[in-house]
Amino acid sequence: MKIQSKGIANKSAKGEMLDVFFSYIEFEDKQIINNIPDLKNSYQEIIEINWSHKDLDREIESVSDAYLKLHLLSHKLVLPNSINLDGLFSNLPNIVWTNQGPISIEEIENKLNESKINKNDLYIRSIDKFPCLTDYIIPKNVRIADARRVRLGAYLSEGTTIMHEGFVNFNAGTLGPAMIEGRISAGVTVGKNSDIGGGASTMGTLSGGNNTKISIGENCLLGANSGLGISLGDNCIVEAGLYITAGTKITLLNDDESKLVKASEISGIKDMLFLRESTTGKVIAKPNKKTSALNKELHNND
Amino acid sequence: MKIQSKGIANKSAKGEMLDVFFSYIEFEDKQIINNIPDLKNSYQEIIEINWSHKDLDREIESVSDAYLKLHLLSHKLVLPNSINLDGLFSNLPNIVWTNQGPISIEEIENKLNESKINKNDLYIRSIDKFPCLTDYIIPKNVRIADARRVRLGAYLSEGTTIMHEGFVNFNAGTLGPAMIEGRISAGVTVGKNSDIGGGASTMGTLSGGNNTKISIGENCLLGANSGLGISLGDNCIVEAGLYITAGTKITLLNDDESKLVKASEISGIKDMLFLRESTTGKVIAKPNKKTSALNKELHNND
Amino acid sequence: MKIQSKGIANKSAKGEMLDVFFSYIEFEDKQIINNIPDLKNSYQEIIEINWSHKDLDREIESVSDAYLKLHLLSHKLVLPNSINLDGLFSNLPNIVWTNQGPISIEEIENKLNESKINKNDLYIRSIDKFPCLTDYIIPKNVRIADARRVRLGAYLSEGTTIMHEGFVNFNAGTLGPAMIEGRISAGVTVGKNSDIGGGASTMGTLSGGNNTKISIGENCLLGANSGLGISLGDNCIVEAGLYITAGTKITLLNDDESKLVKASEISGIKDMLFLRESTTGKVIAKPNKKTSALNKELHNND
Repeated sequence: MKIQSKGIANKSAKGEMLDVFFSYIEFEDKQIINNIPDLKNSYQEIIEINWSHKDLDREIESVSDAYLKLHLLSHKLVLPNSINLDGLFSNLPNIVWTNQGPISIEEIENKLNESKINKNDLYIRSIDKFPCLTDYIIPKNVRIADARRVRLGAYLSEGTTIMHEGFVNFNAGTLGPAMIEGRISAGVTVGKNSDIGGGASTMGTLSGGNNTKISIGENCLLGANSGLGISLGDNCIVEAGLYITAGTKITLLNDDESKLVKASEISGIKDMLFLRESTTGKVIAKPNKKTSALNKELHNND
Repeated sequence: MKIQSKGIANKSAKGEMLDVFFSYIEFEDKQIINNIPDLKNSYQEIIEINWSHKDLDREIESVSDAYLKLHLLSHKLVLPNSINLDGLFSNLPNIVWTNQGPISIEEIENKLNESKINKNDLYIRSIDKFPCLTDYIIPKNVRIADARRVRLGAYLSEGTTIMHEGFVNFNAGTLGPAMIEGRISAGVTVGKNSDIGGGASTMGTLSGGNNTKISIGENCLLGANSGLGISLGDNCIVEAGLYITAGTKITLLNDDESKLVKASEISGIKDMLFLRESTTGKVIAKPNKKTSALNKELHNND
Repeated sequence: MKIQSKGIANKSAKGEMLDVFFSYIEFEDKQIINNIPDLKNSYQEIIEINWSHKDLDREIESVSDAYLKLHLLSHKLVLPNSINLDGLFSNLPNIVWTNQGPISIEEIENKLNESKINKNDLYIRSIDKFPCLTDYIIPKNVRIADARRVRLGAYLSEGTTIMHEGFVNFNAGTLGPAMIEGRISAGVTVGKNSDIGGGASTMGTLSGGNNTKISIGENCLLGANSGLGISLGDNCIVEAGLYITAGTKITLLNDDESKLVKASEISGIKDMLFLRESTTGKVIAKPNKKTSALNKELHNND
């Protein structure tokens, strides 16, 4: 397998690489092809990277490595959690993303000062190691109500709608049509026809103490303001407002039986309904008899 | 009754209508009048719509129909839930909202590529069927901390403050001064002097399984991170962090009596305080003896 | 002590002051020095303010007073809650913050109309009394994933990362490296190495009924979607999804003893773990034996 790519890098006044837009990628039989002419701007540079498959498995060693891997994820050429992203944070510089393109941290103070004097309306959108997805890639049949909230490296399948409160980190995303009004942390994937309610949280592994990457199956519903620290199989519902961490002790009900388990012990099983009984405060899990369905009108994103 | 309107439509290279800005509207005795000169830009077109009242009750059949109805709501010429919005999603095209105006999905990839080469700083703010309110209408005496989070079609009364975490969908809004730090879903209205706390959720009817449109009365307080799947009458408080769905079993306390009811059975009643007892986990409702009041300093939005 | 400052004010067509960018500040032995040339633009004005320490303790009486105090906080020349901010809301005008700079409320409708006709791409980012921090000041070694969500007047220490769901109000912030994925209300401070999880809420004193300013100690973790209405000492954990208000009745466990207390009675004590037992619904507090640690890779924000 050969991966061939060409992109445009922006550079700081000192010549440090700020970002790379890979507008040409050949990956197995798939091609993203945009024309790259000769550049006349001395703050830009053409980058060419040719990789074999084993480069996907090695650590990231440069800014351009990082950008190419993030592009591969967001072009859906590779799945989340399928390539080596070690070295991502240490290789990505912290950049000031402005309405006039990326600017290095060192140069921003002067540029902002000049802009105030000359009223040329520079302003900062974000200061981050990661840019937002839509600065580079516009996925097909997707809605993203607030572009700021989806990072480059997000994997968004056709029919995905990200509402204003939705968020998708890099190396995370949706495997089919989905409604995302909550936060998809790095490493988390959501199966097709699932609905992540407003303000719902999925635990990531980057901060806050969780170590296991979680996934959400198909036809699941995470209620608004709920949260999830375990994986869900298909056809599961977590009640609005209920947060299940890996350590939550859950009363598992089935027919006439009842059993106390740690949530992590039932991670990934399907057809479950999770709720907190409002008369006893007990968190229970029981067979889910409802089938969730997405509202098709909301996902016909042509 | 006659509704007369004139607006400017933006069109794609193919001639498809992207959006309409109605700068001239006569509605009964109310007038929004801005001058519309002859246009020289071939990607723009003057749209003129003259309606009678019965057009408000019929389905939406075109992009311009949709935009006019959304303008009527946001100019507060009609109340939320008072006009027929069927056909809204199917008639609104998914548009790329950029810092250089609306662009059709078909054209965006080329334009983004050209922008990277020529460094003309195109970037995407949103990909959505709905634009944001303030791209068209600036309501009087309102603060909106993050303009991205209020859609065209929102109904915002004077004295409304929408904080950074607030959100207001189309066909939803505030009927008087209000503090909105949570999410007002489509179809939901909030009475005057009510406070929707940070991250609070109101259940809509578009996704997630709720079928009844909910409303919030006057002088109510939805605590931070709470949620609501029923209506509230005046002077109600929902404790921070408590999510009440229509199915929540609530212990209703009154004097010495206690009764178990489904939340939907007490939807819309007034003077109630909802909380989860922190010693038993029971969700209870009891008479509310406090009166909530907005901090006037925060709503003098001159 | 002398405080000397010079800045550039933007004015409306009527001559009303919209904002001030203080690019030159001398404060005790600290200096922020940017060059201010003669201005040719008649909508701008050079502002010079020379204060003694007692001006920090008096009420705000003008737009420029307000902007200077907010600059002092965000340049970390004064700590949150250490200077008099009375008069802030009444002196700050509500401004339309656009991609073409600040515009007065009176002028925006005409400018928006003209922009639609001439396609000069004016759009509104925010309508608020407060601008965002990064329109004026870029703190060192900080990441802010969505610049819209941090107001001028926020105090952000080096090593702070504000994720997309994070928010920091004026007169609030971080006293050392911290991960902020939740909302830091006005008056709230977060100690070093603490982690405020996604969607976590801290109660402010501006609206919603709380009267006591809260603080969070060092090495604390507020879980995702949790909330806090009391202060935390060092090394405390609040479980994901648990909201502790000042009035929450908490079962305090210690060795074999158990005692029922109001949360406000244990405000500020250290080494505590707060959780809601998932088998009984009881909110309990017990000695915290874990030490939280920030992921260093996420806070090396060079």
